[in-house]
Amino acid sequence: MGKGEETKAAIVEEALELVSTVGLEKLTIGALAGATGMSKSGLFAHFRSKEQLQLQVLEEARQRFVDIVIAPALKKPRGEARIRAIFESTFKQWEEDLPGGCIFYAVSAELDDQPGPARDFLIAIQRDYGETLKRAAEIAVEEGEFRSDLDLDQFVFEMGSITAAYHHFGRLLGDPKAEQHAVKAFDALLERSH
Amino acid sequence: MGKGEETKAAIVEEALELVSTVGLEKLTIGALAGATGMSKSGLFAHFRSKEQLQLQVLEEARQRFVDIVIAPALKKPRGEARIRAIFESTFKQWEEDLPGGCIFYAVSAELDDQPGPARDFLIAIQRDYGETLKRAAEIAVEEGEFRSDLDLDQFVFEMGSITAAYHHFGRLLGDPKAEQHAVKAFDALLERSH
Repeated sequence: MGKGEETKAAIVEEALELVSTVGLEKLTIGALAGATGMSKSGLFAHFRSKEQLQLQVLEEARQRFVDIVIAPALKKPRGEARIRAIFESTFKQWEEDLPGGCIFYAVSAELDDQPGPARDFLIAIQRDYGETLKRAAEIAVEEGEFRSDLDLDQFVFEMGSITAAYHHFGRLLGDPKAEQHAVKAFDALLERSH
Repeated sequence: MGKGEETKAAIVEEALELVSTVGLEKLTIGALAGATGMSKSGLFAHFRSKEQLQLQVLEEARQRFVDIVIAPALKKPRGEARIRAIFESTFKQWEEDLPGGCIFYAVSAELDDQPGPARDFLIAIQRDYGETLKRAAEIAVEEGEFRSDLDLDQFVFEMGSITAAYHHFGRLLGDPKAEQHAVKAFDALLERSH
């Protein structure tokens, strides 16, 4: 990376941390100037608009998710071990990577009623994730670990339910048992899939 | 109600609709003036601060949730029928009552990193709801419909997972199968609880 690219990457990281706690809406060029100590005009040179900045932040989040959750799981054996790796890194390393926890939940509630490029991109990221999970479950069926009549979409929904609930009960309600409940629910889901 | 009280109640309803789509953060006295056609000073006479306004909106949401979900369920027979009534009205009538769906999810992501009275009140509302669900499940155990060794907290977590996921997958991702998946997951949860 050239110096300009490095600077831009550092700004996007700072922006992602900010979004993680305050949300996308408050990610203005002005707020980012405050957080980075850069001038507004300097930031405008990197990001032409608030919308461009939002998209860059979501792209950075997507890349981090791949690095933290998807890539390590793909190094695991095919089948159930890979699914378990995705589950564990989603709600440990991924939830702990940013101060506000999973950025995708944080911005979902903001964007669900606001059509536009940011919402479209967020949906695309989550659909990709759903497809990855579905393929991982399908492999577990092919490997004979999951039963052949498993409803793959239902599996993805139920696995997503558990991580969503962990985020909600653990982060918002501060329930100290949220992790324990999530693990138990996930183990039971795998058990039912055999 | 006197005329002043009626006006205030009408404003709070308008504010709740607004929060449902744009979030609590954007519920300013100024935005509410725009939505209601009232003057800012007229609104200040009813709500001394943005924080007071937020709390009134959450209280209105809590009362609506009781009217739409809890009160009708309490008229059902004790046990599983009551739990099923809570589930069905939570994700049908309640999700459909406001333009942005369940207001508690909408504001949870906003408030989870913002300590203060609004967050405390939101947590209290959701804890109450969790306690109500737990008591309903306990009654189903007492009635002999659920097995006596059922982990009640785990049941509440898993039922909450399903409604959270329905909101997330259905509303944000626009998955047309979200309702079908939620119903199937809930039926399976009841089955496992017998």
